[in-house]
Amino acid sequence: MAHINSNYLNIKESYLFSEIAKRAAKYKEEHPDADIIRLGIGDVTRPLCKSVIAALHEGVDDMSRKETFRGYGPEQGYDFVKNSLKAYYAEKGVELDADEIFISDGAKSDLGNILDIFSIDNTVLVPDPVYPVYVDTNTMDGRKIVYLEANEDNDFLPLPDESIKADLIYLCSPNNPTGAVYNRDQLTAWVDYANRNNSVILFDAAYECFVSDPALPRSIYEIEGAKTCAIEFCSFSKTAGFTGTRCGYTVVPFALERDGHKLNKFWLRRQTTKFNGVSYIVQKGAAAVFTPEGKKEIAENIEYYKKNAKVITDTLDELGIWYCGGKHSPYIWLRCPGNMGSWEFFDALLDRAHVVGTPGEGFGECGKGFFRLTSFSTYENTTEAMRRFKEAFGK
Amino acid sequence: MAHINSNYLNIKESYLFSEIAKRAAKYKEEHPDADIIRLGIGDVTRPLCKSVIAALHEGVDDMSRKETFRGYGPEQGYDFVKNSLKAYYAEKGVELDADEIFISDGAKSDLGNILDIFSIDNTVLVPDPVYPVYVDTNTMDGRKIVYLEANEDNDFLPLPDESIKADLIYLCSPNNPTGAVYNRDQLTAWVDYANRNNSVILFDAAYECFVSDPALPRSIYEIEGAKTCAIEFCSFSKTAGFTGTRCGYTVVPFALERDGHKLNKFWLRRQTTKFNGVSYIVQKGAAAVFTPEGKKEIAENIEYYKKNAKVITDTLDELGIWYCGGKHSPYIWLRCPGNMGSWEFFDALLDRAHVVGTPGEGFGECGKGFFRLTSFSTYENTTEAMRRFKEAFGK
Repeated sequence: MAHINSNYLNIKESYLFSEIAKRAAKYKEEHPDADIIRLGIGDVTRPLCKSVIAALHEGVDDMSRKETFRGYGPEQGYDFVKNSLKAYYAEKGVELDADEIFISDGAKSDLGNILDIFSIDNTVLVPDPVYPVYVDTNTMDGRKIVYLEANEDNDFLPLPDESIKADLIYLCSPNNPTGAVYNRDQLTAWVDYANRNNSVILFDAAYECFVSDPALPRSIYEIEGAKTCAIEFCSFSKTAGFTGTRCGYTVVPFALERDGHKLNKFWLRRQTTKFNGVSYIVQKGAAAVFTPEGKKEIAENIEYYKKNAKVITDTLDELGIWYCGGKHSPYIWLRCPGNMGSWEFFDALLDRAHVVGTPGEGFGECGKGFFRLTSFSTYENTTEAMRRFKEAFGK
Repeated sequence: MAHINSNYLNIKESYLFSEIAKRAAKYKEEHPDADIIRLGIGDVTRPLCKSVIAALHEGVDDMSRKETFRGYGPEQGYDFVKNSLKAYYAEKGVELDADEIFISDGAKSDLGNILDIFSIDNTVLVPDPVYPVYVDTNTMDGRKIVYLEANEDNDFLPLPDESIKADLIYLCSPNNPTGAVYNRDQLTAWVDYANRNNSVILFDAAYECFVSDPALPRSIYEIEGAKTCAIEFCSFSKTAGFTGTRCGYTVVPFALERDGHKLNKFWLRRQTTKFNGVSYIVQKGAAAVFTPEGKKEIAENIEYYKKNAKVITDTLDELGIWYCGGKHSPYIWLRCPGNMGSWEFFDALLDRAHVVGTPGEGFGECGKGFFRLTSFSTYENTTEAMRRFKEAFGK
C-alpha cells in the first residue's frame, strides 16, 4: 500500500494571485471601459537582448549539425558558463572556483531542491513577509519553521536574534517582496551569527543586478566568513530577462562543511542523480550575458526598469507615503495610505486609479497594511499609473 | 547547528563509467595506434531534425520581440506541448486529459523528484540489473529497497512475486540496460498486482519509440486498470535526440489516488512549488516533434539506430551468443562469450577488437557475466565493430 507524503497536507493553499485575478476580472466586468494597468506582476517584460538572441540561434545551429551536436552535458553545467560566472563574481571581488558554481534551470528549482541535502530535523528561520517557496518547500519535508518579523521599525531588514536558534536561515537581498537591501554591516551580523551557531544561510540573490550602490553587497561572499556558512542562489531571470528561458546558478563553496562533510560534494551528488543539466542552447544564451556587448545590453534593460521604479518612488515621496525598496530593487513596498488594510487598498487602487498591485498580507502576517508595486511594466504605463495614483490618493 | 541528510552517506559510489574511461584511456596509451570504437554510450549522436531546428529558431525569435516575448510560463508546461502529447497518446489508443500530462526538463529529474510526494516509509521494488537512478534517489530519502531478479530464465522480464510486498514499483520497458520489452500479458500481471496491493508503478517509458511491433505496449496505459496504479515517465531524449536539449514528460492520471488523495494534485503542487517550467524555446522545439513532418524526420533517425542494432543482433545470432533487446530497443544485452565475467569480457573486447562496451555488472548483481552494447554509434563504426567482434570471438 503506497502512502503519500502527508506533509503535503500541511501546505497552506495560497489564493493570493488567483484572488487578485478574480477581483480584477470582476471589476473589469462591471466596468468594461476601465483601462486597467498592472503593476502587480513579478515578471520581466523586455525581450532578450541581441547578444543573447544571437548566441541562442548559434546554439540551435550547433544542434542541427552532426559535428557540433551536443548530447548529455555535465549535470553541473558547461565550463563556458561556469567560467563566465566565475569572472562575474571576480568583478564583485569574490574569488570562486568554477566547480563551486552549479548551473541549473532556475533559482526556484535550486531553492527547493537544496533541502534534499539537509536533515529534516533542522529548524528553519524564515523572514516574514516572505517569498512563499521558502515556507512551502520546508513544509513539504516536515521541517519546523520559525519566523522573523520584518517591519517598519527594522526597515524590513531583520537582524539575528540570539534567542532564536535556527539551523537553516533564508535571506533574500534585495528582498522579494519588500525591495529592502541589507548593507555590509547587517550581512556581517548574519554571517557571524551563522558561523557561531553552525547554521547555514540560504542566500537568495536573484535581484542582485538591481543594486547600483557599490557600498551595498551583491553577493553574500563579499562578507568575510560567508564561505563557511552560506549557499548563494542566483539566476539570469531578472539579470537578463530569462524568466521564460530558464537558467539559474547556485554557489556551494568548498569551505562549507557540516557534520564533517563538504556540502559541495553533497549537492554535486544530488544534481548528478536527480538532474541532467540545462539545455545546451540555453547555456549558450546565458554565457552571452557576460560578454562585453551582452553586459551593455542587459544594463540598458535594467536601467529601463529602474527608471520605472523611480517614477513610483518619486510619487510616493511627493505624497509622503512610507515605503522601502525601489532604489536597488524592482519592488516597491509601501504602507497603504490612510491606514487601509492590504486588500482594502487593493480595491481602492483598482477602483479609483484602475491600477492592480499586490496586497502585502499575501506574503505573510507582517505584510498586513502594506502593498507591493513592481517596475516591470512599460514606462508609459508606469507613468500613467502614477499620475492616477496621485490624483486618487494625493491630498 | 545545521545537519546533513545522512542518508547520502549510504549511496554507493558508482565507478562504472569512470572505470570504463580509465581502462580505455590506459589501453589507448599503451596502444596509440588502436582505432577504438565506442558502443558503450547511452547517448544519441544524430543531430536534431529539421522541423525541430526550425521551431527552436522560431522560439528564439519570439524571445527577441516585445510582442511575442514570453516570461514565466505554466510550471506544468504550455498547452501547445501538452496537447501534442495528448494526441501522441491517442494514437496509441490512450485517452488522456491534457492536465494529466506534465512537461519537465527530463525523465531523470521527474523520476527523482516524484519521490517527494510519497512517504519515506514506502518500500520500493527495483529490478536488478537496473538504471542506478532508481536506487540512488530512494537511498537519498532512506526508503527500504527490495530487489527483483531479472535473469536469463525470465528473459530479463521478471514478473510479480506475491510473496514480495512493495509499495512503489519501478518498471522500465523497453528496459535500460537489458533492452527487454514486456508484452501485454506481462504488464497486465504487474498492473493487477499493483491494483490488488495498492502499490504505485513508476513506469519508465523513455525508450518506447523503439517499439515497432504493434502487439507490444508502448505505454502502461494501454493496459486496463493502469490509470489507478501507474505514473508514466517519458522523454524527448531518445524519441527526438533531446539528450542535450532537455525535455521530458510525466503522466499522473486523475484516477490515481492513495490515502484518499489525487496524486495528480500532489505532483502539481510539487512542480508549482519547486519548478518553474521548461524553457519556452525548448517547448517550441518539442511541439514540432509531433507535427507530420517532425514525425517523419524522427522516424528516420530511429530507423538509423535500429539498423545499427540489427547489425549487432545479426552478428550475435550468427555467433550463437545469447542476448535480449536490440529488436525494440537501442540496447543489446548479451551473455559474455566463453563464460567470461563482465569486466573480463570488457578487457578482451577492447584488446582483441578495440571496441568499448559496458560491463553488465555495473548495473547490479544480476548483470554479472553480461554486457551491454548500444546502437547509438554511426552505421560505419557499428559495422566495423561487429566485423572485428566476429573475427575475435567467432569460432
